Amino acid sequence: VYALWASFVQHRTIEAILKDKGLAKVGDAIVNLCYSLAKTLVLGRATGEKVQDVVLARAIRATPVYRQLNRKTDAGTAADAYEAILSFLWMKGSVTIEEIVQHLVPLLTIDAATSRKQERVVAIDAFTSLLLLLTDRLAIP
Amino acid sequence: VYALWASFVQHRTIEAILKDKGLAKVGDAIVNLCYSLAKTLVLGRATGEKVQDVVLARAIRATPVYRQLNRKTDAGTAADAYEAILSFLWMKGSVTIEEIVQHLVPLLTIDAATSRKQERVVAIDAFTSLLLLLTDRLAIP
Repeated sequence: VYALWASFVQHRTIEAILKDKGLAKVGDAIVNLCYSLAKTLVLGRATGEKVQDVVLARAIRATPVYRQLNRKTDAGTAADAYEAILSFLWMKGSVTIEEIVQHLVPLLTIDAATSRKQERVVAIDAFTSLLLLLTDRLAIP
Repeated sequence: VYALWASFVQHRTIEAILKDKGLAKVGDAIVNLCYSLAKTLVLGRATGEKVQDVVLARAIRATPVYRQLNRKTDAGTAADAYEAILSFLWMKGSVTIEEIVQHLVPLLTIDAATSRKQERVVAIDAFTSLLLLLTDRLAIP
């Protein structure tokens, strides 16, 4: 089924992925869906959350991929790079929504009493771990 | 795989689905992902779009499901109801992202020159058609 959109992810360098603003837009929806589903599983009821740029920016800055950006970037640009990576891998069929959610769930140590600030710290760690897991799959042919 | 979140979609009435704000949050991300992927396929490059409440509100108002809301609703509430239906069906495994995208693509008669206002009109019709397709699957046990 991934052949539907596989032709739009034929980037030849990691830098080209990180800078693709179109991929970042698709990735924004993927990130929000996966985080909403993970939070649903953790809290035990359907719920959702838009993941803030600052969360994804801190997550990508905590991994070696960030060096590929090769210059100081603002939170929006760094978050776009994270979203573009996730979108690239998902559109290629290299990761599924289910796998992302299952990776996030045990790392989301939150409950109904967790403050937004605390949740943000937990989410940064969870998205850092996810990116470290997925980085190996970014191998460009 | 849908067993992961199937336990959160055991609603017994359509009204309960339409009013579930948690489902609507998950559905918001599903709608944005599907529309972004459909637009990617139509325009031939990765791109994305947040679907506005007014688009989903007009779409649901154009279908018989809207009668289930049983009172005058604002655009935000109507859009939430649309998103909740889509989320319910996707979380149950009754529809896939691929199927939604493939339904939207031939209806999205837009190109790079289409104005935002024109695109909105086209999107309303596409999401109306999608909801009409999916309504039959809302059968509650």
